[in-house]
Amino acid sequence: MKPNFSLRLRVFNLNFWGILYWSKHRVDRLQRLGDFLNIESFDLALLEEVWSEQDFESLRQKLLPTYPAAHYFRRGCRRAGLSSREKKHPIQELTQHVYTLNGYPYMIHHGDWFSGKAVGLVVLHLSGLVFNAYVTHLHAEYNRQKDIYLAHRVAQAWELAQFIHHTSKRADVVLLCGDLNLHPKDLGCRLLKEWTGLQDAYLETQDFRGCDEGCTMVPQNCYVNQQELEPYPSGIRIDYVLYKAVSGIYISCKTLKTTTGHDPHNGTPFSDHEALMATLYVRHSPPQHSPSPTHGPAEVSPLITVLKEAWTELGLGMAQAHWWAAFASCVIGLGLLLLVLLCALVAGGQTGEVTWLLLSPSVGLVLGAGAVYLFHMKEIKGLCKAQAELQHVLRRAKEAQDLSVVSQPAQQEDRA
Amino acid sequence: MKPNFSLRLRVFNLNFWGILYWSKHRVDRLQRLGDFLNIESFDLALLEEVWSEQDFESLRQKLLPTYPAAHYFRRGCRRAGLSSREKKHPIQELTQHVYTLNGYPYMIHHGDWFSGKAVGLVVLHLSGLVFNAYVTHLHAEYNRQKDIYLAHRVAQAWELAQFIHHTSKRADVVLLCGDLNLHPKDLGCRLLKEWTGLQDAYLETQDFRGCDEGCTMVPQNCYVNQQELEPYPSGIRIDYVLYKAVSGIYISCKTLKTTTGHDPHNGTPFSDHEALMATLYVRHSPPQHSPSPTHGPAEVSPLITVLKEAWTELGLGMAQAHWWAAFASCVIGLGLLLLVLLCALVAGGQTGEVTWLLLSPSVGLVLGAGAVYLFHMKEIKGLCKAQAELQHVLRRAKEAQDLSVVSQPAQQEDRA
Repeated sequence: MKPNFSLRLRVFNLNFWGILYWSKHRVDRLQRLGDFLNIESFDLALLEEVWSEQDFESLRQKLLPTYPAAHYFRRGCRRAGLSSREKKHPIQELTQHVYTLNGYPYMIHHGDWFSGKAVGLVVLHLSGLVFNAYVTHLHAEYNRQKDIYLAHRVAQAWELAQFIHHTSKRADVVLLCGDLNLHPKDLGCRLLKEWTGLQDAYLETQDFRGCDEGCTMVPQNCYVNQQELEPYPSGIRIDYVLYKAVSGIYISCKTLKTTTGHDPHNGTPFSDHEALMATLYVRHSPPQHSPSPTHGPAEVSPLITVLKEAWTELGLGMAQAHWWAAFASCVIGLGLLLLVLLCALVAGGQTGEVTWLLLSPSVGLVLGAGAVYLFHMKEIKGLCKAQAELQHVLRRAKEAQDLSVVSQPAQQEDRA
Repeated sequence: MKPNFSLRLRVFNLNFWGILYWSKHRVDRLQRLGDFLNIESFDLALLEEVWSEQDFESLRQKLLPTYPAAHYFRRGCRRAGLSSREKKHPIQELTQHVYTLNGYPYMIHHGDWFSGKAVGLVVLHLSGLVFNAYVTHLHAEYNRQKDIYLAHRVAQAWELAQFIHHTSKRADVVLLCGDLNLHPKDLGCRLLKEWTGLQDAYLETQDFRGCDEGCTMVPQNCYVNQQELEPYPSGIRIDYVLYKAVSGIYISCKTLKTTTGHDPHNGTPFSDHEALMATLYVRHSPPQHSPSPTHGPAEVSPLITVLKEAWTELGLGMAQAHWWAAFASCVIGLGLLLLVLLCALVAGGQTGEVTWLLLSPSVGLVLGAGAVYLFHMKEIKGLCKAQAELQHVLRRAKEAQDLSVVSQPAQQEDRA
């Protein structure tokens, strides 16, 4: 018997790679993306890395008849929330959360700290249901073997999970799209899924059409840095469509498509990332055989495992931050010592060129190292805060597990 | 007929003023505060400005038998969430949100930027009800006539209101305590109350005992800077207990007490702020004559007014930030010009002492002004983000008002 679906939702997600003066063929790609979105008329289109507000504005104007509602989240995570389904303004509420930790300001060549990273939320009312749609972009991974940003990315994944957990309590359906910069089995990804209960459209879909293993950065894409993808012949999967529904509502992914290294007309791609296009079905009654098992005592264990892992990773990040703070303290001390020495020389009348030359750099050294010290102290506090929250959830998860261990033999005895 | 209350909640709030090496008699005050909290055995004690984690830990140890659950929020807003009512661990969940904007790093003598400001949330389950308890501390006001932090404080009040709005959707009772650094009629305070629907315990209480006009910083307090309070002979009210309950639940404030410039035994005060002690009653059924009118079309208007005011204030803040960014750009240009000139002199063999002396400060100037430029660009983005959210709420509030204007004459016609 064909299930009686009440709502079909077509969702589009793309990291657009729209960095001004850097990303190739930006204007042309934006033009073609606009045409494609207009033709396809998705219910919800979510974009990351639309860096320029002018680009967003021109896209908004172009899409206005098909997508009447749009919002641009400032701070790194740029997003367009566009809906064509409802005639009335469907965006009921919106807000965003900027991640506490996001790399280091002195890593100028990576630039994540400067762009900022955040998660945006729009609350939509569609067919009487409350939809919480989240869009995000986490810190990039530059070196998988020696990833100095791992603790920050885990902290961001945890903040994202907490933000979703605390802001979706009255939502019927939760949808998260974005470039997580996390491979499917990475700690951050597992942490996010375990704590929020979100399901991965690629793993759950009944019909997938796209790149091998659902990859969203593939060597076939002409904008991709081929050297970076060398260890991954099929590419990597770092962009996601994740979803969940609360009790009484059931959500499933009918189809998931990705572009395959070029645009849908075999032209140059829309971006260096592949686009994700999911068709979700939402209905009021639960199915006869739900693919998502209900949360219960048996599921506590993987949550505890991943919480412990994350706790350890944040601890390693903290140790590293402590080391940098200590190093900066030593440099401050050295700079002050040098300053005292130079002042003594100046006071003694020895004002040679070298003395003058060294005076200003010494002041600079003290100030620079002071800034580095302050930054890493703030980093320690941020990591510490995430660890404290993790620890609290871990404690409660363990209590729940212990309780189920105690109650299960009792139930067995009852049955006997 | 005496109403049948189901739950009595005694709440304590204090900005403890516990800055290491700065706040007078810190250790002694902490000791006496601990004794007082143990004797009084509140259901919930919330503290701000417990700067040192060691202080928190010693307080936690001292209060352990009376207050089994405690949490310390790092990042400026230091808080102890302590409960004596429930034997079992009553803190179900916890998280915090760090405010995007919080003053300027180069205002070292004010120090707010360095300490960080945040709002902490603990979710408690008491007598089958979900309690969301928030604690916060907003940016200080140093000059009321020429307040350079006004836009930041308004943005913080908005972020606080949004955080409460989005995280309390399944709460039965919402409680916000803290040092808002806002007078009762200040824009930030009105914005917070209008958007969240929170009620002020001082205005709603049936019985108030404490300082005149409910002030929480008074000239009688020996730790208060008397000069700062000169324009306010009675003092100022900047610390609050705010609350609300959702439909089906009713909350009222039976008594509100403050300390009056000294501790409850007429000794030296606990802090430079006065402590707030509220007794709240929560019951399941609504009262016959509720003091809080239900939200309806008639209430849309004050919300619109305050949203417009906040929007304008953030706009002024943005103009100021744009000015600073432009000024920093000019300084960068000047520094670069000086550098080019000095390099030309060095290349020409004119390496006098003055040339060497000026070389490093020029580099410093460019780097320093670059940092100022970056900071103010981030500030603009933060203000812009808050303005966009305000604008969205404003648009929807106006739509709701227009709808009520249209529907009211129709209702009158129906009645006729």
